[in-house]
Amino acid sequence: MADDSNKIGQYDFVAEPFHVDFTGRLTMGVLGNHLLNCAGFHAAERGFGMMTLNENDYTWVLSRLAIELEEMPRQYEKFSIQTWVENVYRLFTDRNFALLSQEGRVLGYARSVWAMISMQTRRPADLLTLHGGSITDYVCDRPCPIPKPSRIKVAASEPAASLTARYSDIDINGHVNSIRYIEHILDLFPLSMYQEKRIRRFEMAYVAEGYYGDRLDFYLDRHDDAHYEVEVRKQEDEVVCRSKIEFTVI
Amino acid sequence: MADDSNKIGQYDFVAEPFHVDFTGRLTMGVLGNHLLNCAGFHAAERGFGMMTLNENDYTWVLSRLAIELEEMPRQYEKFSIQTWVENVYRLFTDRNFALLSQEGRVLGYARSVWAMISMQTRRPADLLTLHGGSITDYVCDRPCPIPKPSRIKVAASEPAASLTARYSDIDINGHVNSIRYIEHILDLFPLSMYQEKRIRRFEMAYVAEGYYGDRLDFYLDRHDDAHYEVEVRKQEDEVVCRSKIEFTVI
Repeated sequence: MADDSNKIGQYDFVAEPFHVDFTGRLTMGVLGNHLLNCAGFHAAERGFGMMTLNENDYTWVLSRLAIELEEMPRQYEKFSIQTWVENVYRLFTDRNFALLSQEGRVLGYARSVWAMISMQTRRPADLLTLHGGSITDYVCDRPCPIPKPSRIKVAASEPAASLTARYSDIDINGHVNSIRYIEHILDLFPLSMYQEKRIRRFEMAYVAEGYYGDRLDFYLDRHDDAHYEVEVRKQEDEVVCRSKIEFTVI
Repeated sequence: MADDSNKIGQYDFVAEPFHVDFTGRLTMGVLGNHLLNCAGFHAAERGFGMMTLNENDYTWVLSRLAIELEEMPRQYEKFSIQTWVENVYRLFTDRNFALLSQEGRVLGYARSVWAMISMQTRRPADLLTLHGGSITDYVCDRPCPIPKPSRIKVAASEPAASLTARYSDIDINGHVNSIRYIEHILDLFPLSMYQEKRIRRFEMAYVAEGYYGDRLDFYLDRHDDAHYEVEVRKQEDEVVCRSKIEFTVI
């Protein structure tokens, strides 16, 4: 385990036509989906994948995601995602990502925080004792030069938008899927925002699960032209997730 | 061009976690996306792809889609899509698809109808004169044993649902994307429908383009427990697309 290159997984993609927005760039939701898939591939190749875990009644739960980008791939462009494990604690593990252009230029980085829970009890598992603690063998000290997920606090007292969770929002676990929240949150902003600006940094904090039929209220704080925070609540007052969005002029 | 096997493209996929619904089966929207991508790959490999066309100011426009399935792939299952051109007329071409399990078993078929238009004038191009009519070299007589897209007629006078087209709905051409309509239409049905039934046949007829900010009204006719028709209109009365959905008990 001396060579860190073995600890970094790399997966190749292409920006498909229905995966880009009106500017022709990959959407944040699709990038998020790819990141989570890469986490899954990388974990599965090392014996910690969802399928293996599910057999033992455990599953990974995404807690935090922070993405910071200089550029998004354009339609039909090939790109790669690298992923590695930065830290393993008793209840959480930090997994990082790099987004690379076809030529290998770094377009951005992402950080994620995961817990493992029992599917029976929904209680967290101790990562350091699982498989005899072998998950720590995959810890890699490649740097990830973006700040960690930050604290998000929303003050708005009236929702900026509301919707009811429908069939297409629900994943195999019966929860509103993590990617749909990203799409619904980005839909809070007018098209003109994306004409003038791009997302420089995007954060999600997943707090509780949403279910089919839940009314989801989106509370939005605007700090200035470029900085926004969102809190999604279900059934009036229970926080489901929070997000922080930083735009920059194109 | 004697051997039809050269005329059939085959592309491999896996049912990703965020691409399956709460039953663990691939969603119709994602399948539609894959079908359209395969159409793109197959056309591009033969010099009729979007990128080549766009350089010459032409683009493919999807007019009809009909999908008939015995089964949808489950989460993590590998599957393949085959595609071939059945007919080329002056203004339309028929492209068919087969959905295959990893073992090569046919899970279903699909039919699509496409026109080519000038991006400048939005007027249709004559397919039979394009590239000296070489598109007809790719016509393949492999059978596609499902009915052609049918006529859809909706009588409902009140919308079953309405929404405003947002950022995530809009594609690189500035239109509401073809796949989003599928998702919005399937969201008209309650989760309980998908618990008891699966979609046996699904049709889309794309009539006009929707744009950002359009209010989309969804008119729904129920013929019986299994047969539904939907018409999507924008700005009160202009038809954007129509859909026919046939469910069958699981």
